[in-house]
Amino acid sequence: MAKPKKTPRPKAETPRGFRDYFGTEVTQRAEMLAKIAGVYHRYGFDALESAGVEKVEALGKFLPDVDRPNEGVFAWQEDAEAEKPGDWLALRYDLTAPLARVYAQHRNELPTPYRRYAMGPVWRNEKPGPGRFRQFYQCDADTVGAGSVVADAEICAMLSDCLEEVGIERGDYIVRVNNRKVLNGVLEVAGLSGDDKENARGIVLRAIDKLDRLGVDGVRALLGAGRKDDSGDFTDGAGLDDAAADVVMGFMDAKRDDGAATCARLRELVGDSVVGLEGVAELETIAELLSAGGYGPDRIEIDPSVVRGLGYYTGPVYEAELTFEIKDEKGRPRNFGSVAGGGRYDDLVKRFTGQEVPATGVSIGVDRLLAALHAKGRMDTQAEGPVVVTVMDKARMADYQAMVAELRQAGIRAEVYLGNPKNFGNQLKYADKRGSPVAIIEGDEEHQNGMIQIKDLVLGAKIAENATLEEWRDRPSQYEVPRADLVTRVREILELYR
Amino acid sequence: MAKPKKTPRPKAETPRGFRDYFGTEVTQRAEMLAKIAGVYHRYGFDALESAGVEKVEALGKFLPDVDRPNEGVFAWQEDAEAEKPGDWLALRYDLTAPLARVYAQHRNELPTPYRRYAMGPVWRNEKPGPGRFRQFYQCDADTVGAGSVVADAEICAMLSDCLEEVGIERGDYIVRVNNRKVLNGVLEVAGLSGDDKENARGIVLRAIDKLDRLGVDGVRALLGAGRKDDSGDFTDGAGLDDAAADVVMGFMDAKRDDGAATCARLRELVGDSVVGLEGVAELETIAELLSAGGYGPDRIEIDPSVVRGLGYYTGPVYEAELTFEIKDEKGRPRNFGSVAGGGRYDDLVKRFTGQEVPATGVSIGVDRLLAALHAKGRMDTQAEGPVVVTVMDKARMADYQAMVAELRQAGIRAEVYLGNPKNFGNQLKYADKRGSPVAIIEGDEEHQNGMIQIKDLVLGAKIAENATLEEWRDRPSQYEVPRADLVTRVREILELYR
Repeated sequence: MAKPKKTPRPKAETPRGFRDYFGTEVTQRAEMLAKIAGVYHRYGFDALESAGVEKVEALGKFLPDVDRPNEGVFAWQEDAEAEKPGDWLALRYDLTAPLARVYAQHRNELPTPYRRYAMGPVWRNEKPGPGRFRQFYQCDADTVGAGSVVADAEICAMLSDCLEEVGIERGDYIVRVNNRKVLNGVLEVAGLSGDDKENARGIVLRAIDKLDRLGVDGVRALLGAGRKDDSGDFTDGAGLDDAAADVVMGFMDAKRDDGAATCARLRELVGDSVVGLEGVAELETIAELLSAGGYGPDRIEIDPSVVRGLGYYTGPVYEAELTFEIKDEKGRPRNFGSVAGGGRYDDLVKRFTGQEVPATGVSIGVDRLLAALHAKGRMDTQAEGPVVVTVMDKARMADYQAMVAELRQAGIRAEVYLGNPKNFGNQLKYADKRGSPVAIIEGDEEHQNGMIQIKDLVLGAKIAENATLEEWRDRPSQYEVPRADLVTRVREILELYR
Repeated sequence: MAKPKKTPRPKAETPRGFRDYFGTEVTQRAEMLAKIAGVYHRYGFDALESAGVEKVEALGKFLPDVDRPNEGVFAWQEDAEAEKPGDWLALRYDLTAPLARVYAQHRNELPTPYRRYAMGPVWRNEKPGPGRFRQFYQCDADTVGAGSVVADAEICAMLSDCLEEVGIERGDYIVRVNNRKVLNGVLEVAGLSGDDKENARGIVLRAIDKLDRLGVDGVRALLGAGRKDDSGDFTDGAGLDDAAADVVMGFMDAKRDDGAATCARLRELVGDSVVGLEGVAELETIAELLSAGGYGPDRIEIDPSVVRGLGYYTGPVYEAELTFEIKDEKGRPRNFGSVAGGGRYDDLVKRFTGQEVPATGVSIGVDRLLAALHAKGRMDTQAEGPVVVTVMDKARMADYQAMVAELRQAGIRAEVYLGNPKNFGNQLKYADKRGSPVAIIEGDEEHQNGMIQIKDLVLGAKIAENATLEEWRDRPSQYEVPRADLVTRVREILELYR
């Protein structure tokens, strides 16, 4: 008889493309989200939290990155019930599709315009790559039901406030604004306005969306006859003649010294295109409103080279870029780049209700922002370790418990060592692993004398690093103090290292 | 030729059993979680955030509620790749199963003992019911790798601190502690200790877990011959004789005036059962440690009638109950009941590593806590609406924008009306819907005189409610002030209604 097979033990691992976040990775993100939520709130935006799960039919195609290889959602079918097939459900892949569903569902109760913010995880069923995860945070604010560019200007100002609130200094970032309508005007001037030109327009939109990757020459080739890439593959071009291609290239290169000059240049480019002129006027209005609110070109500027998402959005487009340099993995300086972006999209709820409802919104990449603050050294990398009260005598656990209770009541993070106390070295190793600033020791002798030992672990580590260092000579890293002074003396040390 | 069918519009609705949370529903929960995280942190617990998605094989059976009809997870299979079948993935159904996976996966890098907290949504593929959703929040703290009941005592103290931190006053709650080992001792005395008694032990455990629902008589029947329920269905009993059943019932009824008396009574019940005596000693230690930390029986008490989860946990079990009365939907007073619970479970990572690792932890029901605070009237039900700057002249939008910018810089929540400004009444209706305390009006005349109108909407509503009220006579709800005093005068009003 064959032996019964044992079920093998499950492997303890995250699914491919998912990860765990520990300690400060969690708390620093939570703090950043709370700060951003504070700014959003001050601007009159209300919180919305929808579930992670939506019906597949309610999830539309709202993603700006049209080049994504597949729709990439995690989906499954509900169990059938009473001969009715189960609904297909899916994890949300962004926060915009749920906003559309929520607004369509609750539009009679919600105020119009509806300013809402949302923050939380989204899921993408994509091939994971280095630094590319299948669950990540989004942090969005959108205004639904306001067609005026006042709403766009407001979001640009809010984005600027958010960046400063989380610690990006003025001068270290710039919010750039462009307008799809200006591009539409440019396309008209380039002779690409008819219904029969849809294919060519598509090629142009995709080409300029790739400006970062292909460079000016690559885009120029795609506007004209087409482009052969490094692998030898050929991509058809839009077939524009040189003059028309010049107009389109000129659009991306239209930025001048100030907003007025840039708008003047754009006005030249769009000629008498109605939509183009409307777009330029919108940019002028945005610049004027921002200036009235104190948001000058040191924070927000008109910049027609912002082309990301122009294929997706229908009006103003905005992007926040960090302007300082960081070192890449090979030590070369490079710009940090984009940390937030958004724009106007006017077909938010049309899929559900048939009505066109104007909307505009921004998404802040909190994980990139956190990385930026770390790169600038503006983020504590060290966790705030707890004071560890060591255990010298298991029978006196109640005394140790009383000590941590006192420390906590004074607002000091503290814990009793809960492992096997036999090996005192292990207790100090534990304190080290926890990043503890202070250990407390109370053996029988100290206890009888009403004293405790305080061990300054930060100083101890410094002395260990360089034992000959003169400056530490007069400062002992361990000393006895009265038990009654526990809180005072621990606080003294914590304040030294703050 | 048949006409091509139009795709019907998708319905805008949440999937069955899911819901949206708006405004203060979101922010009040976030504030509560932040407060609890602060207490957890102070006790030395570190944050952990795992993904919502786990491999199905990594999700074990850790749920305390053994009566749940099915395992109830949302699961799907990954696409196959290179002839390898795709992994089965699932949404986490609690935060304990991911903790087990994380600890097994990272145990070499994590400190031991590992104190961690986690808060976030979990998903259950269950039949939704009234007030019962398929996504909800959990908020857990667990200590992994500490076998001593010092860890349990610490968590009880922390639970008490958490409740007070979020606004439950001392006296309005009690944390009750019991111990599975004492029950094991009682089962021994009742003659249910042998391997051949496993079935009967199971019946007893399930019966006492249902004490709330079945009452004393129902449980007693299940300990003996069995029980016929209202529908006529018969459930087999454990077959205990009266004396043995008395011991088990006596366990649940063992609470005395103070912890010492209760422990003495338990000591009688467990006779010379080794495990039973160990359990009683653990309860005594817990009481002693808590008392040393200042947590007396006004906050935490030994109570053998805590039976929820005794079938699941392996040592101390604890539960926090709110002791004040609320009115149920029919206006009858009832106790609010349990808002948190937990205990010791010593097989956390065994499925993965084969090793027994002791663990103990608590889960706080934040949504129930929020409901409790609302029921006690300790929670603002009114959202903090923004100051609304109305639009009298579209061409002067920049001026209005400057006003809100000033207000926001002063920390005051403010917004410009972004809808169609033509109908002024609609602007005031909007302000009303937003719960705005103040509206600002600046028409051409005011503008020319450097003045603005301030409309106190809270006072306006009170006057509208009772127009004859004398006390309002001398206080106008709308008046003119200099434009330069905008922030000062708005702040005055906001402080009146704080």
